[in-house]
Amino acid sequence: MKIKIIVCFVLLFSLNSILLFSQEKIEQWHRFEISFSHKYKGNAFKDVRLSAKFSNKDTTFLVRGFYDGNSTFKIRFMPEWDGKWSYITKSNIPGLDGKKGNFTCVPSLKENDGMVKVANTYHFKYENGDYYYPFGTTLYAWNHMDEKLRDLTLENIKKADFNKVRMCVLPKAYGSTVIEPTLYPFKLKKKDNDKEGKEAYTWNFEKFNPEFFQNLEKRIDELDAIGVQADLILFHPYDENRWGFDEMEHEVDVRYLEYLTARLSSFKNIWWSLANEWGYLKSKTIDDWDNLIRTTVENDPYGHLCSIHGPTAVYYDYTMPELTHVSIQDEAPVLNSYTTATLRNIYKKPIVLDDLKN
Amino acid sequence: MKIKIIVCFVLLFSLNSILLFSQEKIEQWHRFEISFSHKYKGNAFKDVRLSAKFSNKDTTFLVRGFYDGNSTFKIRFMPEWDGKWSYITKSNIPGLDGKKGNFTCVPSLKENDGMVKVANTYHFKYENGDYYYPFGTTLYAWNHMDEKLRDLTLENIKKADFNKVRMCVLPKAYGSTVIEPTLYPFKLKKKDNDKEGKEAYTWNFEKFNPEFFQNLEKRIDELDAIGVQADLILFHPYDENRWGFDEMEHEVDVRYLEYLTARLSSFKNIWWSLANEWGYLKSKTIDDWDNLIRTTVENDPYGHLCSIHGPTAVYYDYTMPELTHVSIQDEAPVLNSYTTATLRNIYKKPIVLDDLKN
Repeated sequence: MKIKIIVCFVLLFSLNSILLFSQEKIEQWHRFEISFSHKYKGNAFKDVRLSAKFSNKDTTFLVRGFYDGNSTFKIRFMPEWDGKWSYITKSNIPGLDGKKGNFTCVPSLKENDGMVKVANTYHFKYENGDYYYPFGTTLYAWNHMDEKLRDLTLENIKKADFNKVRMCVLPKAYGSTVIEPTLYPFKLKKKDNDKEGKEAYTWNFEKFNPEFFQNLEKRIDELDAIGVQADLILFHPYDENRWGFDEMEHEVDVRYLEYLTARLSSFKNIWWSLANEWGYLKSKTIDDWDNLIRTTVENDPYGHLCSIHGPTAVYYDYTMPELTHVSIQDEAPVLNSYTTATLRNIYKKPIVLDDLKN
Repeated sequence: MKIKIIVCFVLLFSLNSILLFSQEKIEQWHRFEISFSHKYKGNAFKDVRLSAKFSNKDTTFLVRGFYDGNSTFKIRFMPEWDGKWSYITKSNIPGLDGKKGNFTCVPSLKENDGMVKVANTYHFKYENGDYYYPFGTTLYAWNHMDEKLRDLTLENIKKADFNKVRMCVLPKAYGSTVIEPTLYPFKLKKKDNDKEGKEAYTWNFEKFNPEFFQNLEKRIDELDAIGVQADLILFHPYDENRWGFDEMEHEVDVRYLEYLTARLSSFKNIWWSLANEWGYLKSKTIDDWDNLIRTTVENDPYGHLCSIHGPTAVYYDYTMPELTHVSIQDEAPVLNSYTTATLRNIYKKPIVLDDLKN
């Protein structure tokens, strides 16, 4: 068993003395990762069930693990409270079952730290108590671009003082400039040309491509390093018959969310946005969306912020308890405060105007 | 068995020839009433179950009957389609069970006739196809006033061209002028004075007072005669510890609604408004309201319009399918059309601004 602590500590000198007496320390709201090397002959993405129970005094978290390729299984955990945490794994594979360990979580002393959560009905606060006022932009496909463009993007986010970006997990084919991504979320079965000479992709929807998700994770950590929330768009309609990620079977959608939440729930700066312009994803019904929302929330042990964004002036049923805030694209509440106030009266949740004009 | 046709026919001469060949005729959307004389020794309001099945070709309506006092049981029915209708009663009392009969419904040829129902998502239409544009006022307690004041009220409604009034079923004690009503919905057990010398009423909540409801029915018919919709407020918080009708047991509330819907569903010009300012009725929970809404809708075989009105800027969950429209008291949607448009986008139902300013 190999234990790797991903996040570096930036600790005050006063804490150094405490650190001498325990082996493994994680700063509050950072990631603790357990990594197991295990050769599995079948489809490890689909057949292996792996989870761990993390306990701290009277609190227990049940966290799902995931297969990261190369015979490597991982479980990630974000401690929200300081103190000693212990864990035990559970798996249908004997080699991964019953593994035990523990670590110590030390309190964060930074400003604006922890997840952003709803506070006082209509507002947001970091878990360490500071108010968070969203000032965001959209960078739908920045994670699918090359390093040079990504670095320029990060520089400009800093310059503009944005503290939130909306970004699509799945690649986007929309608008006049389409750069073909180098990574895809699923294993490519074959790529050929259809009758009209257009590229046609066939995917193995039962196998994920871990590199795709590792790349995404690096981008999320880059945003966290500059204090930016990543409002992750889980589905979008901008596929234009290119890869078909907008019309996967419901069962594949659910498995994709289970895999994504297992990998990403422990990232403190993420928000879940089930969709951008959900109304244009014609292959999904309201029942499908309801189930995808529930799948996301049930598989996130920390309760990250969660919403769904629709086409202009199209409102999802934001009274759904799983939706923590209202994420909308509508001019009316931007153009006059009466309307925004009325939205607050209706939903009793924070109202985030995520597209100001279309 | 005594059959009484309450509503007079105003028929075109061309229909007279048809009328000669059948015994009983009811104009479309008017009331057909069956009346049974039967002596029952127990509590006829609570113990007797009576209903009738009305059938016309492939359509069947199940209609609840009620006890009207003086050993009289009644069943009322409003035919929505012309043609021959037959009925058969069902009761736990043998003398009221299995009674059969039939009548002929002739089409209405009047303008603005039939119930008002939702049309084209955001609008209202009479059942005969004409649009209905609500222009209403509130007459909370006019039905509890004396004849002189009531007649003056009706005259002024006509002068102002109102086509809808909001009125409370239960008496109202609010404001500086409180006229004690002569009729109450329940049988009075005793009336005495409390320690402070204030009148104290004790009711038999298991027995209704039919005269109270007969008076209400006359008022509703008077409104219908001048083309006005009666938006009936079923509960309100303006009792001020006077009669206690604002804090009856939930079971009594349900029985009251079952009795009211049995008596009134066949009145074509009624709308159900579960409450005025529901948020001030502190003894009822949201679950109570949800159940009272469902009780009303389930016991109305015709689907009259149904909503619930809250305190200023307090929104009920109008996504509830039983609520046909949004009935609100809020300045924001009155002061700017953006907000009203947004309410339409959210609820996909007609928005009725039932209190313009408070």
